[in-house]
Amino acid sequence: MESGAGMKPLKAVVIGSGNVASAVAPALEKAGAISVECVYSPTPGHAATLAEKLHGASAVSEVQDIPADAELYLLAVKDDAIAHLATVLKPNGAVWLHTSGGVDCSVLSSLTSDYGVFYPLQTFSKGVEVDLSVVPVFVEGSTSVALDVAKRLAHAISDNVHEADGATRCKLHAAAVFACNFTNHLWAVADDVLRREAGVDIHVLEPLLRETLRKAMLVRPADAQTGPAVRGDVNVMEKHAALLAGDEAEMYRYLSRHIMDYYKR
Amino acid sequence: MESGAGMKPLKAVVIGSGNVASAVAPALEKAGAISVECVYSPTPGHAATLAEKLHGASAVSEVQDIPADAELYLLAVKDDAIAHLATVLKPNGAVWLHTSGGVDCSVLSSLTSDYGVFYPLQTFSKGVEVDLSVVPVFVEGSTSVALDVAKRLAHAISDNVHEADGATRCKLHAAAVFACNFTNHLWAVADDVLRREAGVDIHVLEPLLRETLRKAMLVRPADAQTGPAVRGDVNVMEKHAALLAGDEAEMYRYLSRHIMDYYKR
Repeated sequence: MESGAGMKPLKAVVIGSGNVASAVAPALEKAGAISVECVYSPTPGHAATLAEKLHGASAVSEVQDIPADAELYLLAVKDDAIAHLATVLKPNGAVWLHTSGGVDCSVLSSLTSDYGVFYPLQTFSKGVEVDLSVVPVFVEGSTSVALDVAKRLAHAISDNVHEADGATRCKLHAAAVFACNFTNHLWAVADDVLRREAGVDIHVLEPLLRETLRKAMLVRPADAQTGPAVRGDVNVMEKHAALLAGDEAEMYRYLSRHIMDYYKR
Repeated sequence: MESGAGMKPLKAVVIGSGNVASAVAPALEKAGAISVECVYSPTPGHAATLAEKLHGASAVSEVQDIPADAELYLLAVKDDAIAHLATVLKPNGAVWLHTSGGVDCSVLSSLTSDYGVFYPLQTFSKGVEVDLSVVPVFVEGSTSVALDVAKRLAHAISDNVHEADGATRCKLHAAAVFACNFTNHLWAVADDVLRREAGVDIHVLEPLLRETLRKAMLVRPADAQTGPAVRGDVNVMEKHAALLAGDEAEMYRYLSRHIMDYYKR
């Protein structure tokens, strides 16, 4: 099934009211893939806020108030909350999907035989509109029923849908940690250096950052590598390390060494 | 002096025909800050290609053919070529500026008393148009004459002009290595992981990368940090490290440790 065109929206319960739920549930409803019957959050106000963005959805904050008659249960909660919720929620014959990159789908096996994953590979912030059509969505299902529902949801909002099992999702997540979390940390260190040493901040590098990203996407990042380490310019590297704080200098030397080794291979 | 408005373009010689020279010289001429008399490059074809983009500029490939009568000599060459060129070029009373972040301006002191730096903090590629008006330009001068010329050039093309001495430029450069060169390397590693482990490539992370950069610029990067390390999620970190190759796993652990220590402070 390639899209939800011509199909009735699935009657759905959304478990969670955080950034992922708030971005994904209204988009899925707008695309006609689901009709949200109820939003659950342990914090009543949060459940109500999301329910207001959905058509006719109720808001509940007690697990026993979650309706049992939905066709789809979408768990968009923090990783460590999924396993806990799986033990306190009532099993039924519906399709259950979670939205996590890092959690195996079998965690839902106590709730139904038709479980799976709908994992949008993006960071969501409340109040920030994201163009979901370009966001890659990775899907998995324990059965063809579960996989078909996950795919139907994914195709309804994204042009970039892939099947991926738990091991692959974990590798995607590890790669995203390198590419996004670690990168952001390097920006934090650069921001510190700029504020402390030059009286400016990371914004002075913004045009350079945009261009670095643009080039890395145009060619392969490995083919876009520049800087003293890939040139093997030991003088510049030592000059830089000497003016950085102790832990910054250590990281500078570590990453420079890694780059030199990488391009020597 | 805030702009070159109403002033005659400076008669200029451009030394170098690489990415910086090819981006900056035509922009400075178009803005009316300089009129390029001659382009020098040891490779005749390179000098000619840039000269063709300038109005009435000659192209020379022998040092002794560089005209002596210009008001400005702009050295846009690789860092290690600047010191060498300073020993073989003929001194005169003109203003001499180089475009490097990493080289002290005193390297030009054998050529003139009015020397300085015009350092655009951006990475340039031939054939790629860059909006120079947002590019920060850092200027320095040995005398008020040299500084005024450097400022005049900078204000002619950019709205983002700062004075910075050699030590500050070196710190800016070190910060840029963290923010851009090291970041690009992390993208290269992520690209390797994605290709090897998931049959996709770095493009699958492009929406996430754009959003990560957007958030880091909106708040401070340190306030935008996400991921297992800042959460102290040891289980996820060990799961990730276990599925990476040896040197990738080592770097994953190293950077995770650095993030944990940073946010513990």
